[in-house]
Amino acid sequence: MFQNFDDVVDFSQSAGRVERLRRILADQGLDGFVVPRADEHQGEYIPDSAARLAWLTGFAGSAGQALVLADKAYVFVDGRYTLQVRDQVDLCVFEPVSSVETPLAAFLAKLAGPLKIGIDPWLHTLGDAKALRETLEAKGGSLIALAANPIDRIWNDRPMPPKGTVSRHPDSLAGQTAEAKLAAIASTLAEQVADAVVLTDPSSVAWTFNIRGADVAHTPLPLSFAILHRAARPQLFIDPDKLSPATASYLGGLADLRDPGDFEASVSSLGGSVVMLDPTLAAARIATLVEEAGGTVKQRPDPARLPRAIKNEAEIAGSRAAHRRDGAAIVAFLKWLDGRTPGTVTEIAAAEKLAAIRADVGRADGMDLRDISFDTIAGSGPNGAIVHYRVNRDSDRLLGEGELFLLDSGAQYQDGTTDITRTVPIGTPTEDMRHKFTLVLKGMIAISVARFPKGTRGVDLDPLARIALWKAGADYAHGTGHGVGSYLAVHEGPQSISRRGMAVLEPGMILSNEPGYYREGEFGIRIENLVLVEPATEIAGGDLKMMSFETLTFAPIDRRLIVPTLLGREEIDWLNAYHAWTFDILSPLLDPEASSWLAKATSPLALPPAG
Amino acid sequence: MFQNFDDVVDFSQSAGRVERLRRILADQGLDGFVVPRADEHQGEYIPDSAARLAWLTGFAGSAGQALVLADKAYVFVDGRYTLQVRDQVDLCVFEPVSSVETPLAAFLAKLAGPLKIGIDPWLHTLGDAKALRETLEAKGGSLIALAANPIDRIWNDRPMPPKGTVSRHPDSLAGQTAEAKLAAIASTLAEQVADAVVLTDPSSVAWTFNIRGADVAHTPLPLSFAILHRAARPQLFIDPDKLSPATASYLGGLADLRDPGDFEASVSSLGGSVVMLDPTLAAARIATLVEEAGGTVKQRPDPARLPRAIKNEAEIAGSRAAHRRDGAAIVAFLKWLDGRTPGTVTEIAAAEKLAAIRADVGRADGMDLRDISFDTIAGSGPNGAIVHYRVNRDSDRLLGEGELFLLDSGAQYQDGTTDITRTVPIGTPTEDMRHKFTLVLKGMIAISVARFPKGTRGVDLDPLARIALWKAGADYAHGTGHGVGSYLAVHEGPQSISRRGMAVLEPGMILSNEPGYYREGEFGIRIENLVLVEPATEIAGGDLKMMSFETLTFAPIDRRLIVPTLLGREEIDWLNAYHAWTFDILSPLLDPEASSWLAKATSPLALPPAG
Repeated sequence: MFQNFDDVVDFSQSAGRVERLRRILADQGLDGFVVPRADEHQGEYIPDSAARLAWLTGFAGSAGQALVLADKAYVFVDGRYTLQVRDQVDLCVFEPVSSVETPLAAFLAKLAGPLKIGIDPWLHTLGDAKALRETLEAKGGSLIALAANPIDRIWNDRPMPPKGTVSRHPDSLAGQTAEAKLAAIASTLAEQVADAVVLTDPSSVAWTFNIRGADVAHTPLPLSFAILHRAARPQLFIDPDKLSPATASYLGGLADLRDPGDFEASVSSLGGSVVMLDPTLAAARIATLVEEAGGTVKQRPDPARLPRAIKNEAEIAGSRAAHRRDGAAIVAFLKWLDGRTPGTVTEIAAAEKLAAIRADVGRADGMDLRDISFDTIAGSGPNGAIVHYRVNRDSDRLLGEGELFLLDSGAQYQDGTTDITRTVPIGTPTEDMRHKFTLVLKGMIAISVARFPKGTRGVDLDPLARIALWKAGADYAHGTGHGVGSYLAVHEGPQSISRRGMAVLEPGMILSNEPGYYREGEFGIRIENLVLVEPATEIAGGDLKMMSFETLTFAPIDRRLIVPTLLGREEIDWLNAYHAWTFDILSPLLDPEASSWLAKATSPLALPPAG
Repeated sequence: MFQNFDDVVDFSQSAGRVERLRRILADQGLDGFVVPRADEHQGEYIPDSAARLAWLTGFAGSAGQALVLADKAYVFVDGRYTLQVRDQVDLCVFEPVSSVETPLAAFLAKLAGPLKIGIDPWLHTLGDAKALRETLEAKGGSLIALAANPIDRIWNDRPMPPKGTVSRHPDSLAGQTAEAKLAAIASTLAEQVADAVVLTDPSSVAWTFNIRGADVAHTPLPLSFAILHRAARPQLFIDPDKLSPATASYLGGLADLRDPGDFEASVSSLGGSVVMLDPTLAAARIATLVEEAGGTVKQRPDPARLPRAIKNEAEIAGSRAAHRRDGAAIVAFLKWLDGRTPGTVTEIAAAEKLAAIRADVGRADGMDLRDISFDTIAGSGPNGAIVHYRVNRDSDRLLGEGELFLLDSGAQYQDGTTDITRTVPIGTPTEDMRHKFTLVLKGMIAISVARFPKGTRGVDLDPLARIALWKAGADYAHGTGHGVGSYLAVHEGPQSISRRGMAVLEPGMILSNEPGYYREGEFGIRIENLVLVEPATEIAGGDLKMMSFETLTFAPIDRRLIVPTLLGREEIDWLNAYHAWTFDILSPLLDPEASSWLAKATSPLALPPAG
């Protein structure tokens, strides 16, 4: 289940694969084909059997797409992957394009002449397909939804679809029964005057039915679809091989269990119905099936998405417990690393040590570590500047004297998902590193201490994390925070703290708070805690109740990288209080040696003179 | 031209007018009718002849709309007008609704049953009409575009449309000839593969042709339309009575001058053409005319809007000169007010005094004051809490001891438009007033000192102005800043610093920076400077060039209202530097007495001890 460091990038076959694809496209009279990093569930987490983009291009990032034309081919990636893509793809075959500056639709709009571009309609959302179609048609071209994916014809060694075991997620941890969730969604259907909703996001299926799966790496998703009806039994489309008799019996009590092979026919039987689909999540193919059958598609948000994002008391309690446990593991790891001589530990050794420690703390309190929550980002020196760096045997290097080591990792415990980044100096850091670290810390504290009124969106907080860097002529090419699930996906919507964060923040949402700074070829800095949106409370002398964040993550922030004179009183107060809480919460979970190491690591910074 | 303080609110006839309107609606089989505050140009600035909303409801704010149903009637206003609307409308006839919490379309969506709602399609943009139509049709209702506005049938004493004189705006102040602007728009048409664009916004007509008019209060707009063709002479639809022979000759050299009565027929003659219309600015009726004639509407931003917002060197130089002149007037006024005994000056007397001083400074340097740029907001005590308060003979009151006086005013000089707010204590302010003033000042300084990368939008800066207030449980129900024209509208798009500010900020844009704080029934605080977006410059030790703001407005910020211990070092540094610039720039324009008053008003605050 844990990380595999052996999957060294290999793009040696790209050129041949692209040529074979081009021959099929030419046979079908197509000018091009789009290969997204997506499966039919449109999530960030896909099984190896759906990794068509990586197979074709070598690019292994968590977001991107390729456009293969007759004579050119492009890979579109966002700012996180600008460096990585150039290492992973054959630059003679693929030209990288910034999807932020030129999204695929804008890129197509700039190409000369009318183009006939194919897609696999299972791999694009309604919204994406609509945007692509409109762009192409505006220039006299067309978007062709292909009946079969041409990649699948040439991908000879394609893995089998996963059959990960599904288990029940206890009601005590979920905080609400599946029956109650299904009843709430049925009410939503009644409100929306809709007959049915198709749940296409496995996170939504998992949340609604209180189950967890094992089909994709690091996220307990059961790849499956469900159709929930306003006035009939739910239908759950899941491979029976994934279910133990007990799980099958539990799920059979909630829904008709159907084979995934029946899904298409079942959608086609919704003729005459009003069917809710989330245009940002549902595959275009599903809308076509509904409409061809004579049904009506009503575009509405996935009804499980917002309730899943707003954690209840049981989920919050679980997350707090998971974070205490995880913080103890991080401290044990940092103490271990602190005792190593610079130049003796590799990135992989560090990641493996951390995973081993996490497994221990889980065993200690009966909430076993189920998995890490994503491939550990363990980047030393220049590797730290690759935002979503994933260490492998080729890129692995020693943590050298005078370097920074950026460690972004997380865990899946049954009671909660964690995600934490700490950056530590190996030996003595430069003044420049300390300066930039302190600016990043200022941004991270600005989010930690923010208060904000009802109606505030993530976009309204994002700049607070950046302004200190902006003033110094710096920035980071990623959002400040993403939503985090409850023993589910470590990247969860709709909430985010970013330029695109238009979802209103609601009490109970969990987000990351992770500004950073990256200097290509030299070092990377990121500091990340998870935070929980707290209900609005009265403020003495104020007019309005304000929401705020409770920090969930506890682990020391390296004092050797802080320039205290760059911090204001409020910032130093927060840091000292945070370190005091960290010690109080974690030291009971640590052995005496680690506890005394933590006492030093969390000792207070001096306050500046009053003024 | 200046402010009229006599237009006391009178809603005594609302009930009768609404009843007469309802009879017409019933005759036409309509369930309701929407009355926006709009004319056929969809601007914020409308002539008295188009003030249907005020005539019907009594509400005189600069934004809002009424919905009249058979048995209920509503007035929709935003946060600026929450208090004012309750004073101005007959609450037995109209129920106020927050247009922020429940916009009209959302409100209609909540009403039971299918409704047949009428609109005057000259008074709604394409975008608005589309949203209303979709909402009504989703519930089986319909939107009816009426051929004649029913209000006009019952508005017996409706004023004549204005015939303000149009004058040429010198090329030396415009910085670019009309010929060059027309050529640039023709290139845009070629790029967009469009045959023509209809300019419906009088600001765009004024900017494109380098003319100014006098049709609406305080904004030199020539109410007019233009059709610009890719490959034919422009057509300008303007009342010939507005043109002197010299102006007619100038404009005749640029365009075919047509009577406004010919506009509809000319749009209808665009059959077969691709016609660009701005969906946020063009009346729905114009799109219908194009489409009924067989033309194709291409929805694109008004091509004059962004170039107008990005000021050139001549416009920037003009704005700087206008602000120096205006700052000298503000200082002379503040000194005068400082010499008055509390309880002896009324709001109207203060506004009149300021206008008289502004007229003097204009005469002194040959750039006469043409007008104030909006009705002066001169709110003392509780009146200051009414965000867009407009003093009249009924509401006028003395500036009393222990009160705050909020003065938001601006000027139209031929070389630039100004807009400034200062809040001053009359006698001794309370600690609470000083606390809130200082928090507002912190927000205003945060914008003043911000640096930000290419691509930053106004929404990305807005929170910086609010966070100090948020932490104290306070906020303000308006944007932080709006765009400002060059001897044009004091509210200009697309740029803004607000929750809805999605336009990217570009060097050359002028915006206001005006956070505030309002306590109903007690006092209001606002501090406003205009700022200019400066090109990105290198920052020592930085990676990215950053943009920043040059402050254009110079006038002292009242030191008696500042709590220095609430300010950080960077804030005090900015304030002291700002005050030093203010003295250096303005004292040469002042008499010795005013100059010595200014020296005191701008003396530095002590820095906090180093730390």
